[in-house]
Amino acid sequence: MKVIYHVDESEKWNLTLTNVSNMLTVYKQEGVDYQLEVLANSIAVKAYAEEELKDKMQMLANDGVEFAACANALRSNQIEADQLHSFVHVVPAGVVELAKRQSEGFAYIKP
Amino acid sequence: MKVIYHVDESEKWNLTLTNVSNMLTVYKQEGVDYQLEVLANSIAVKAYAEEELKDKMQMLANDGVEFAACANALRSNQIEADQLHSFVHVVPAGVVELAKRQSEGFAYIKP
Amino acid sequence: MKVIYHVDESEKWNLTLTNVSNMLTVYKQEGVDYQLEVLANSIAVKAYAEEELKDKMQMLANDGVEFAACANALRSNQIEADQLHSFVHVVPAGVVELAKRQSEGFAYIKP
Repeated sequence: MKVIYHVDESEKWNLTLTNVSNMLTVYKQEGVDYQLEVLANSIAVKAYAEEELKDKMQMLANDGVEFAACANALRSNQIEADQLHSFVHVVPAGVVELAKRQSEGFAYIKP
Repeated sequence: MKVIYHVDESEKWNLTLTNVSNMLTVYKQEGVDYQLEVLANSIAVKAYAEEELKDKMQMLANDGVEFAACANALRSNQIEADQLHSFVHVVPAGVVELAKRQSEGFAYIKP
Repeated sequence: MKVIYHVDESEKWNLTLTNVSNMLTVYKQEGVDYQLEVLANSIAVKAYAEEELKDKMQMLANDGVEFAACANALRSNQIEADQLHSFVHVVPAGVVELAKRQSEGFAYIKP
C-alpha cells in the first residue's frame, strides 16, 4: 500500500501522526508492504523545525515513514534547511509532490 | 462510480451529507451505477451515536450509501458498538479503509 | 499531469490559488503538459462573484487553469450565472465533477 498524507494546518499535525501510527500498526500486524509519506506545505512546515512533535515523527521515520517539506512554504515561513529535523527531506513544490505521488498509485489522505 | 467521503470533524457532517445527497440525485437521474461510502474517524464518529443527523443518514443508507466508523476513534471517544446507529459498520482503522478503497478505484472526497 | 483542486471554504481560496500558481511555475519550467481544474462548491462559490480574487484567478485562467462552480452551491447562495466571472464554468454537481475527474486520472488536492 502506498499512501501520501497532506498537512497544511498546524492544528492537524497531531491527528495526522495518530492516523499514520494507526495505519502502521495495521500494516505491520498484517505484514503489508507499505510506502508512507507525509507532505507538509503552507504553515504546517513549521512543525519540522520545532521540538514539540519531533519524537513522535522520529518514531514513525524509524518505521520508514517519509516526511517531506515544501520548499516554497519553507521560504514563506523563513525556515532554512538546516533548521529542519534530520529525517525531513525538501521537495521543490508540495502540491507537485502530491500530484506526482497520486499518479504513481499513492492514495491521498487529508486529515 | 465508486466514491469514498472522509469526515473527521463534527462540523463537516452536514456538508458531507448534502454532498452525498446531491451526488445521489445525479447518479439516480442518470442511471449511473454507484458505490458510495462515508468513512468517519477522529471526533466525527460521535455523530454515529447521536440522534441529530440519524434520519438524514438513514435515508442515504436506504439508497445504499455505506456508513463506516473507525474502531480506533470509537475507542478514543468511548463509544461502544451497540450505541451506533444500526446502519453503521465498524472498520479496524479508518485510514486503512480510505487507502484500501482508493486502491480499489474509489475517488476520494474530503468535504 | 492532471489535477483537480477542491475548495469549499472561503478562507482556503488564497492558499488554493497560491498552490495552483506554484504548481504552474514548476510545470511550465519543466515543460510538463498539464490540465488543472479548481472546483468550488458550498460557500466557496461566492468568490466567483466577488472582485477580491478575480485578477489572481484570471491570471491562472490565462494559463489554462479551469475554474468550475457547483450549480447546487450557486443556488444555495443565490448567485446567478451572469454574476460569475467570465472564466468560470458551471457544473451540475461539484462532487460529481470531483469523482468524474478522479476516474479520468486526475489527482485530487484539498488545500
